Amino acid sequence: MKISDKQAIEFHKRHRGKIEVRPVVKIKDKADLSLAYTPGVAIPSEKIAKDHNLSFEYTWRGRTVAVISDGSAVLGLGNIGPEAALPVMEGKALLMKEFAGIDAVPIVVDTQDPTEIIRFITHISPSFAGINLEDISAPRCFQIEEALQNLGIPVFHDDQHGTAIVVTAALKNAAKVVGKKYSDLKVVILGAGAAGLAVAKMLLGLKCQSDICEIIPGGDRVRDVIVVDRTGALVSERQNQNIYKQAVASLSNIDKKTGDLRDVIGGADVVIGVSGPNTISKDLIKTMAKDPIVFAMANPVPEIMPEDAKAAGAKVVASGRSDYPNQINNVLAFPGIFKAVIDGRLKSISPEMKQAASNAIQSIIKNPTPDNIIPDPFYPGLAEKISKAVLSVKD
Amino acid sequence: MKISDKQAIEFHKRHRGKIEVRPVVKIKDKADLSLAYTPGVAIPSEKIAKDHNLSFEYTWRGRTVAVISDGSAVLGLGNIGPEAALPVMEGKALLMKEFAGIDAVPIVVDTQDPTEIIRFITHISPSFAGINLEDISAPRCFQIEEALQNLGIPVFHDDQHGTAIVVTAALKNAAKVVGKKYSDLKVVILGAGAAGLAVAKMLLGLKCQSDICEIIPGGDRVRDVIVVDRTGALVSERQNQNIYKQAVASLSNIDKKTGDLRDVIGGADVVIGVSGPNTISKDLIKTMAKDPIVFAMANPVPEIMPEDAKAAGAKVVASGRSDYPNQINNVLAFPGIFKAVIDGRLKSISPEMKQAASNAIQSIIKNPTPDNIIPDPFYPGLAEKISKAVLSVKD
Repeated sequence: MKISDKQAIEFHKRHRGKIEVRPVVKIKDKADLSLAYTPGVAIPSEKIAKDHNLSFEYTWRGRTVAVISDGSAVLGLGNIGPEAALPVMEGKALLMKEFAGIDAVPIVVDTQDPTEIIRFITHISPSFAGINLEDISAPRCFQIEEALQNLGIPVFHDDQHGTAIVVTAALKNAAKVVGKKYSDLKVVILGAGAAGLAVAKMLLGLKCQSDICEIIPGGDRVRDVIVVDRTGALVSERQNQNIYKQAVASLSNIDKKTGDLRDVIGGADVVIGVSGPNTISKDLIKTMAKDPIVFAMANPVPEIMPEDAKAAGAKVVASGRSDYPNQINNVLAFPGIFKAVIDGRLKSISPEMKQAASNAIQSIIKNPTPDNIIPDPFYPGLAEKISKAVLSVKD
Repeated sequence: MKISDKQAIEFHKRHRGKIEVRPVVKIKDKADLSLAYTPGVAIPSEKIAKDHNLSFEYTWRGRTVAVISDGSAVLGLGNIGPEAALPVMEGKALLMKEFAGIDAVPIVVDTQDPTEIIRFITHISPSFAGINLEDISAPRCFQIEEALQNLGIPVFHDDQHGTAIVVTAALKNAAKVVGKKYSDLKVVILGAGAAGLAVAKMLLGLKCQSDICEIIPGGDRVRDVIVVDRTGALVSERQNQNIYKQAVASLSNIDKKTGDLRDVIGGADVVIGVSGPNTISKDLIKTMAKDPIVFAMANPVPEIMPEDAKAAGAKVVASGRSDYPNQINNVLAFPGIFKAVIDGRLKSISPEMKQAASNAIQSIIKNPTPDNIIPDPFYPGLAEKISKAVLSVKD
């Protein structure tokens, strides 16, 4: 699916953007106006003043979420600022409606100060049923999301958890394809940003609060995970790693390996790239265990092109691209997650709920094959299935 | 138009609110997804990063405004908080679309600290083409609006300016009905909140910055205006009045009258109530000049009921109610004002533009009569007419 600049600009310019606000009631005369506006509107307002929960019943709040970004880590483009992030946020809002029937409003903020963003989101919270944080750079995203967990409505950073949910689903099916047990996989994750750390936490079955992580009891978890950043492998003894990396380091890299990707990938069953273009060579793939699993998710240019990974011996290859099989894309998860937020009027989204969402996605592929480990975003009823799975978890 | 509680609640509950977000593009397959989301969305994002103005072309920003309130002065209900303000803000968003084809998003904030609200609105500004402030109590509303005048997008407090625009239009036609010259009218305004001070400024033809007001040269202005608050008439010598009242006092009340409404209304041609229920008696109306004009706009219970004002001798009576003639309602103005914001991509809205909007509304009624001084909100092309008038003003 090659997109030309002209095509993309035409598409975005034609209607000035991708979404609009539309009435769901008819205003054809003064009687309608009296109901929708003054004096009729005073009646729901007075009732909500006495019981704030009624704002979910009498206004669009009950079915509407915000997609919020500061534009600090947009796609593979980096810190391009709030205005430039708007097309992406609008795209997510569009997909919320298309795939889950949920209303979503794109909001971009002109500050990148975590304290200011936390205040901003606290202030805006009575307007919405949930908040999708998006494209906010690490480690600020961890601080922001954590500070907002008791807001009363869920705050979900999709770059972390959406990615982790989809990657985990895909990896479980990939393990089946190569005939290895999921929990026995040796996994190397390249990249320790928002996505990398979140994937590590989910694979390791961790529940973290700031720099303290614990293993969720009874969960299906991978024991051997090594996360590698630009400086090398995360290991608890390393000095120069932020508290979020330190927290993951302390419960991963069981053999306390050090060095860069080249030093730790040998014998690994899986490499998951959430870093940048062309950071994994064919030679490295060749040092992995039998039937390697390669997820190369940098966008639009992956860590290694799928055909090169295959040529180097990879048995299962996934990427973020729509023009290859096994596209790992957050759009598989976030509409269903926010459908659960709306349908269940959730106050927060627990690690167990995220696991349930992942399992729901994974279970759609009954007989995984090398080129089919993950469903299509257009799979009928996908969001509904995820929502039900999430809501089946007792919080 | 009597509205029962049951009717109003049913209306607001049926669809959970009054508006929704809808796609304006079709997403039916992977090709569409690649255009609307990754990788296609990266192209407009990159272009906007280089030129922020393109955010108005490539996203819904170019046709979308926010309606923002802190819930501190909602309708006649007072400080009922952000959640309870949401039905009103959603109503305004609905009317923006119905009457002007503009997209609007209701936003309520959980802080009533002016500094925090100013920061909040600054932060959210890259998301929208304009901001309609709503139902924020005085004098905080003045401070907030003023601080945001150089934001790069217009910030318009409808309770002030929307009211002033419509009242001025109605008053010019009322003057014609009673055969008096608009500029010679003796006007008493009861109420010195957001609406009262804004109406005074517009009638007096003032341009104000904080506590400094000046007369706009060449404008059509009323010279004799007295504003009365709970303490009495505003007069420059009075001590206990905030800086905004002081600023208006210094350019109004030319005879330096003191005392309450009873002491200043004698011989007045016009009384404009923007205060609370039942604050103007029939006896007071009887002390006014020949053919009194009475605008009693408290909602839902006016300062004096229209039939009582008429019985006391009022020649022209207007109110905020939809069940009497001459309904003075901001919905006559704000859709057209924000249509101008969108159509002209305005950076601010000047006093001259507000005057032009008022004149456009007034001019619709060619031959005003006691029961017809102001058009209906459903008057065809009203928003278009206002927008054109506003945009004809050189800023």
